[in-house]
Amino acid sequence: PTLTDAEIEDLLLQVIGWQVKEVVGVKRLERVFKFKNFVEAIAFTDKIAVIAEEQGHHPLIITEWGRVTVQWWTHKIKGLHRNDFIMSAKTDEIFA
Amino acid sequence: PTLTDAEIEDLLLQVIGWQVKEVVGVKRLERVFKFKNFVEAIAFTDKIAVIAEEQGHHPLIITEWGRVTVQWWTHKIKGLHRNDFIMSAKTDEIFA
Repeated sequence: PTLTDAEIEDLLLQVIGWQVKEVVGVKRLERVFKFKNFVEAIAFTDKIAVIAEEQGHHPLIITEWGRVTVQWWTHKIKGLHRNDFIMSAKTDEIFA
Repeated sequence: PTLTDAEIEDLLLQVIGWQVKEVVGVKRLERVFKFKNFVEAIAFTDKIAVIAEEQGHHPLIITEWGRVTVQWWTHKIKGLHRNDFIMSAKTDEIFA
């Protein structure tokens, strides 16, 4: 089910660096990751793509020189599901 | 040098599907490419990354399920250079 605002606030404490961004009324979890160049950025994008396929849950990824922005949300419920926080934590693990 | 509006209008005729999008006062060339799933989308993103590195010119790429949005512009001149149209044409070739 869609998380309540209180639940979101709680879960956000567990994924430092992620923020809630609302796009056309739909809440998304967003974090920006910094890199030294384009090659490192795209390598990170590719790693996220792997876990996305594994989990059957797909983010929006903006790849630029030295920078990757990742957004997780759940299309089906037009909002945030507990799973989006799990994927955000997995994304952090890949970055670490 | 930065292209004039007339030059941009002319060059746009040669890259069908690309539009000029202004972001914080900077013109970018943008096109959305559609795919059957996430895997095909990320494969396209990776191919663009290869030509970007080859040419030493890097776009912004938004990768989503079934969809890749590409933006080319030239940071140094804060606008569009002839090279951005060349890269757009190369992106189309990869897609074709």
